[in-house]
Amino acid sequence: MIENLHTSQISVGVIGLGLMGSSIVAALLVSGHPVKAIAPLPEDMALGPHQIEEQLINCEQSGLLSRSVNSYLKQLTVSEDYNALQDCRLVIECVIEILDIKKAIYRKIEEVVAADTVIASNTSAIPISILQQHVSRPVRFLGIHWAEPAYMTRFLEITCGQQTEILLAEWVYALAHYWDKEPTLLKKDIRGFVTNRLMYAVYREALTLVENGEATIEDADKVFRYDAGSWMTLMGVFRRMDFLGVPDYVEIFKNVFPKLSNSDNVPAIMQEMIRLKARGVHTSHGLYDYTSEEAKEWNDAFTAFNQDIYKLAAQYPGDKIKGSV
Amino acid sequence: MIENLHTSQISVGVIGLGLMGSSIVAALLVSGHPVKAIAPLPEDMALGPHQIEEQLINCEQSGLLSRSVNSYLKQLTVSEDYNALQDCRLVIECVIEILDIKKAIYRKIEEVVAADTVIASNTSAIPISILQQHVSRPVRFLGIHWAEPAYMTRFLEITCGQQTEILLAEWVYALAHYWDKEPTLLKKDIRGFVTNRLMYAVYREALTLVENGEATIEDADKVFRYDAGSWMTLMGVFRRMDFLGVPDYVEIFKNVFPKLSNSDNVPAIMQEMIRLKARGVHTSHGLYDYTSEEAKEWNDAFTAFNQDIYKLAAQYPGDKIKGSV
Repeated sequence: MIENLHTSQISVGVIGLGLMGSSIVAALLVSGHPVKAIAPLPEDMALGPHQIEEQLINCEQSGLLSRSVNSYLKQLTVSEDYNALQDCRLVIECVIEILDIKKAIYRKIEEVVAADTVIASNTSAIPISILQQHVSRPVRFLGIHWAEPAYMTRFLEITCGQQTEILLAEWVYALAHYWDKEPTLLKKDIRGFVTNRLMYAVYREALTLVENGEATIEDADKVFRYDAGSWMTLMGVFRRMDFLGVPDYVEIFKNVFPKLSNSDNVPAIMQEMIRLKARGVHTSHGLYDYTSEEAKEWNDAFTAFNQDIYKLAAQYPGDKIKGSV
Repeated sequence: MIENLHTSQISVGVIGLGLMGSSIVAALLVSGHPVKAIAPLPEDMALGPHQIEEQLINCEQSGLLSRSVNSYLKQLTVSEDYNALQDCRLVIECVIEILDIKKAIYRKIEEVVAADTVIASNTSAIPISILQQHVSRPVRFLGIHWAEPAYMTRFLEITCGQQTEILLAEWVYALAHYWDKEPTLLKKDIRGFVTNRLMYAVYREALTLVENGEATIEDADKVFRYDAGSWMTLMGVFRRMDFLGVPDYVEIFKNVFPKLSNSDNVPAIMQEMIRLKARGVHTSHGLYDYTSEEAKEWNDAFTAFNQDIYKLAAQYPGDKIKGSV
């Protein structure tokens, strides 16, 4: 059935129109799909369409659109009624990380979609193998983990749960290339996905250094921005070693690994943030403090930087220069 | 004495003209300093001046020079004779990471320089407090840790040893701003510096995932390039949390920290690399394999990317948008 449609004719459903959900909708519209967006919350219904339009305008300003914003919006249906999902070949759940809420949503999806429609979660907190237990046909369930903003990042992590049919994951993998992503396909469901595992190893170490008074928050940010940042988008971690010379790394492994934090605990700095209900730029108070003007400047800087690095990354595609494993 | 000179009149010495040493020389020349480069090895003497000229041509092509390449080269002395260091206010050692070799070099430096000349090491493997024990006046010894290529990265990590006079470190910190860096100043000598500690936490986790068959080398590189890479240069790690919302991170900490690798061992993959004498792009064999053409393409891509990200970073300076700690 899937095979008979041109890719751009495949309808995709998205459940949840928060920041992430609406940017996924925008990404799918830009790729040419008809999108059926379900708003489970009243505020999603009120704000979602406006957010999506804003994001499409962003895309237009960045030169990602080949037609008018309106012509993309015509492909969009926003509804509170799950029946809108009927013709979707793929439905992406993108709601709050609470299992019971997700379960209820999967039930509603399965009531209306075809038996071979793929159902995906954008979760970054709950293992796919667990979510999968709450759908009637677990083989067609998998994880599609996006980065914000979905229409202007190349990252996409596709994760199988224990029961996922691999052919369906490979179909999503192929679709992701059509969306202009650089997807990864994880056939094993590891706790925390690959990107989380790597970044949380950094967070554990960085927080430990700060707690021990060995580095400041500002210093840790500076070294990552100007050292890691200077090669990350080109190389990733392993090719970086190939580039700088593998043996030097091994010498440093011997010295540094035994010094690294092995803590399981949530660091006190972060517990304090929770106590203070600090939410960073969103509340003007976080690991840094912000005036509302500074918070806005950071938001604007992020939007602008994202466009810049997205374009820069496109000049250095992974497949152009091989160097195979 | 330092105070009476205009910064650009301060002579700086560099010992060792390998890849890193010669790019440090280029960086210092571009900043306007007279540079006395000491070549401890015959190949440094033979290749160093040529490499430095090439790097200055690189700088010219990237628009970093305000005068001709030759006018910068006129400020450069390359010699095997340590007496050339006599008028230097700062000398940076940049030789192989072998303590005995470094010790011998510090002796030669101290024989010729003034009592208040600052001596620094570019080491990334040996603690400053240990190196410091091998100079006659440890208060004037510190670490200056550069990133490659030194003339086109903003990273600079200044590290005090236990006996370093902090005022001298602060003088280097001020100088580093004159060099157009975004320096960090670590008053405590921690094992592995901040950038190593953070990146080696990533390496430990990434290698463990690959060893367990939970991710491929290519997948780990992809997620870092396209996820972390999409915000790293703008934000670093802590501000990223402020941006995405601190509480979500804390939830994931609880789940992911207990899953992270706590291994002290050099992973088998890396031991195998050592056994095979694999040195990545330099030998066409490493974590990836390369034809000599692909190795060249990666080298060229790195040169080009470095220029691009260097310019991009300059549009988002850390000090422009505050958000103070």
